[in-house]
Amino acid sequence: MRTSSDGLDGALSPEQDARLRESIRRQTLLTTLGITVASLEPGRVVLELPFREDLCQQNGFVHAGAITTLADSACGYAAMSLQPAERDILTVEFKVNLMSPARGRTFQATATVVRSGRTLTVCSAEVLADGNAAKPVALMQATLMAVGPA
Amino acid sequence: MRTSSDGLDGALSPEQDARLRESIRRQTLLTTLGITVASLEPGRVVLELPFREDLCQQNGFVHAGAITTLADSACGYAAMSLQPAERDILTVEFKVNLMSPARGRTFQATATVVRSGRTLTVCSAEVLADGNAAKPVALMQATLMAVGPA
Amino acid sequence: MRTSSDGLDGALSPEQDARLRESIRRQTLLTTLGITVASLEPGRVVLELPFREDLCQQNGFVHAGAITTLADSACGYAAMSLQPAERDILTVEFKVNLMSPARGRTFQATATVVRSGRTLTVCSAEVLADGNAAKPVALMQATLMAVGPA
Amino acid sequence: MRTSSDGLDGALSPEQDARLRESIRRQTLLTTLGITVASLEPGRVVLELPFREDLCQQNGFVHAGAITTLADSACGYAAMSLQPAERDILTVEFKVNLMSPARGRTFQATATVVRSGRTLTVCSAEVLADGNAAKPVALMQATLMAVGPA
Repeated sequence: MRTSSDGLDGALSPEQDARLRESIRRQTLLTTLGITVASLEPGRVVLELPFREDLCQQNGFVHAGAITTLADSACGYAAMSLQPAERDILTVEFKVNLMSPARGRTFQATATVVRSGRTLTVCSAEVLADGNAAKPVALMQATLMAVGPA
Repeated sequence: MRTSSDGLDGALSPEQDARLRESIRRQTLLTTLGITVASLEPGRVVLELPFREDLCQQNGFVHAGAITTLADSACGYAAMSLQPAERDILTVEFKVNLMSPARGRTFQATATVVRSGRTLTVCSAEVLADGNAAKPVALMQATLMAVGPA
Repeated sequence: MRTSSDGLDGALSPEQDARLRESIRRQTLLTTLGITVASLEPGRVVLELPFREDLCQQNGFVHAGAITTLADSACGYAAMSLQPAERDILTVEFKVNLMSPARGRTFQATATVVRSGRTLTVCSAEVLADGNAAKPVALMQATLMAVGPA
Repeated sequence: MRTSSDGLDGALSPEQDARLRESIRRQTLLTTLGITVASLEPGRVVLELPFREDLCQQNGFVHAGAITTLADSACGYAAMSLQPAERDILTVEFKVNLMSPARGRTFQATATVVRSGRTLTVCSAEVLADGNAAKPVALMQATLMAVGPA
């Protein structure tokens, strides 16, 4: 059950958009890794990570940890986009399959809300390299919790 | 079934120890985040991440993505410690519960091999803050795959 | 990478269809629980479980274990539908979110292959009650392994 | 944080013990599969499943769905054992690795509470066949939620 007053087909209100971007700015790890916002909509968030040589695993592909940070953050903001302004979002848990080596110049994580409840939200996220939809890099299924005044 | 000639109770051979450390050095993300080796044993690896202000989420705690990178890498090297020298390890998937806010000065991930097969290895890892065993930060369960000449 | 000669848009060959149904028949737990086949296509399998009072948890809803059996089996046969005839499929691991109480007269699990490799296949499955798409009962993300002559 | 008045080293109070057994009795799927209680302690529950030919997968081993039902139920009652009497437990999600074929005459799932909070509990469970600790059948990591009057 989606509980937000934001319709899923519309755009975020300017207040929700500003709130999400402000929270993203406060996540210093995202800046450290170079993660930026590609798109914020109610129940659907796309974040982007450009390749950098200092984000790799032992074979020169982007590290699963950086790909996971990208997908987890996209899930967090997709969940937050459907919650009232005064609530914050924490990750309870996630599971990620690393399906192909993360090779490419840019990686996009698209997170969508599967189930938005008052306390718990379930999201799924797919990470693609340079829009190569035929070979997804990673697939995440995450549980998030809304905290704070309800 | 653990297939390595390394006994689980002994120490790594100098060759295995050097091989793991060399692979860890090649993971540039680990250097970027400040992750270092605390202990390498057959089937059990401990990695460490000191707190840094540029690794945080929106509330000033260490980001789930950095904690996950720490735990995933510990699982990878625990798996590799029981494989023959010519085999590399890739992460197939992992699931992590974020159980407490990652507050503290240092975070330690201890990964242990639960099941080591020829192709697939299952590891579990626990992340503690400053050795505060009473309130674990995160718990991971991971599947890894050995690739290369067998 | 999907490796089967079955096109994803076509139907299963009569041989593949017979092979899957024969394997399903051999899974005695499915008969015990009353699980039947709704649809078998390349890379997409739908299985069905009618409500029964002897499959419930403490509040009279269908038990997570029965819902999981339904989803896991759908994933297994979706994976097998894209593998050559001589290969069998084993479940490596899965993760399932139970999103709503399993109330209804019939439950359908639809599993789709996200990534089909030579050894490992990743599937995702959604379980709906009586086609109530607005409130999915469960979401699964699974890893399966092909074994036997390749 | 473990919130129950039951000490973790002691036994369950007679009331808690009776409450858990009564809830287990109401889970009709457990009776259908033949799952029984081996041990109930605060934060640690052992359930048992004897082999039956009508609980198998295609190769004659016990089906992952039955093993998962066993482990999930053990996690649920381990979580409930640390909650006040008026609260019920629902499974939020779990992840399970199937590590060895489930062959044997009896399967035991031992679930332990890793983190018990007011709302969410994290458990881990291991399934062994006939006490063959060297080759665990399955490993589960689960999130459960307490509901009802707090």
